[in-house]
Amino acid sequence: MASRGQFITFEGTEGVGKSTQLVNAAETLKSLGVDFIVTREPGGTPMAEAIRELLLAPRDEPVNDITELLLMFAARAQHLHTRIIPTLEQGTWVLCDRFTDATFAYQGGGRGVPEGRIALLEQLVQGDVRPDHIILLDAPVETGMARARQRGELDRFEQEAVSFFQRIRDTYLSRAEADQQRYSIVDAAAPLEQVNENVRDLMCKFHSDLL
Amino acid sequence: MASRGQFITFEGTEGVGKSTQLVNAAETLKSLGVDFIVTREPGGTPMAEAIRELLLAPRDEPVNDITELLLMFAARAQHLHTRIIPTLEQGTWVLCDRFTDATFAYQGGGRGVPEGRIALLEQLVQGDVRPDHIILLDAPVETGMARARQRGELDRFEQEAVSFFQRIRDTYLSRAEADQQRYSIVDAAAPLEQVNENVRDLMCKFHSDLL
Repeated sequence: MASRGQFITFEGTEGVGKSTQLVNAAETLKSLGVDFIVTREPGGTPMAEAIRELLLAPRDEPVNDITELLLMFAARAQHLHTRIIPTLEQGTWVLCDRFTDATFAYQGGGRGVPEGRIALLEQLVQGDVRPDHIILLDAPVETGMARARQRGELDRFEQEAVSFFQRIRDTYLSRAEADQQRYSIVDAAAPLEQVNENVRDLMCKFHSDLL
Repeated sequence: MASRGQFITFEGTEGVGKSTQLVNAAETLKSLGVDFIVTREPGGTPMAEAIRELLLAPRDEPVNDITELLLMFAARAQHLHTRIIPTLEQGTWVLCDRFTDATFAYQGGGRGVPEGRIALLEQLVQGDVRPDHIILLDAPVETGMARARQRGELDRFEQEAVSFFQRIRDTYLSRAEADQQRYSIVDAAAPLEQVNENVRDLMCKFHSDLL
């Protein structure tokens, strides 16, 4: 029977290159002969993607902070229990664009939702399931924002002020500091070839650590 | 300054006549000169109505119980904080088609979600806000189901088995038993004119109790 797959999440503020590095990580796993899927949060199943659309759509109605938090975890419960866990149990690795660390960073650090409320929902939805590895792509907020703007229209989250993203970056960095075993910080402001190499090296290490 | 409005919810299984009695209650309040709004859960604001559509749409993907629970409370947080509470604070009454008692009955009694999980989310979303009065329209499950079928296509909830609705009815009745101060049970299997009169009498009583 196959051993459980590795659950690896990619985190970071807007425009740090998560999408590029997910492709890079996927190519690395392919070259290593590892079975994997690439997915994202919020989303990853048709119902969770529908919840994502609700969350990201710009709207006139102010969205209550607890509403946003509960929608995030509703999408996560669906994704985790109907897709991520069954995939890991088959021995397949899961590369996920954002997970619960993003909720601590965006809703907690960004919006000021108390960390204890997020931790309570994390426990309710996930039990003791956590990512095996978290790759934090870190860059100064201004660097990421400039890249996000180039991509075109900003969604509801990307319309927020720079100070909002600064709090998010700070939260990510303090979580990485507190859990160096699972977190790997990659300097996303470095030249692209360097970032690519660092992420490739991490994937190779996660793989070889299991052999 | 106006005193706080009364928050009155209407509960019951499918086909017990909640819509009819909301109209009847509204007409009674109008004749008493009381300012009120009529709203419903899940829903009551554009965003909460969008969450309702997600919840009620029949879909191939099995919906995780915790996903359903979190979506219910996400819609509730939005409705409560952006509409119900501001309305009550203006002195206006709120008549609401279903509220948290429905979550205890449907997700708890019906789907078997532990009551403690629901109570935890109730506290997170509502703090100490609870309905002032809960009108439970009670009828044997078969009576209600026959009426619901006559209305046309059944939604995802209405496609459930009779035993599911029996557990819901039982949960409603035991909650009413445990909180006779706030719950009023109305026999919804009685002739319509009798049901109408009972609901009218309750509304008049709630009004006169405040004078």
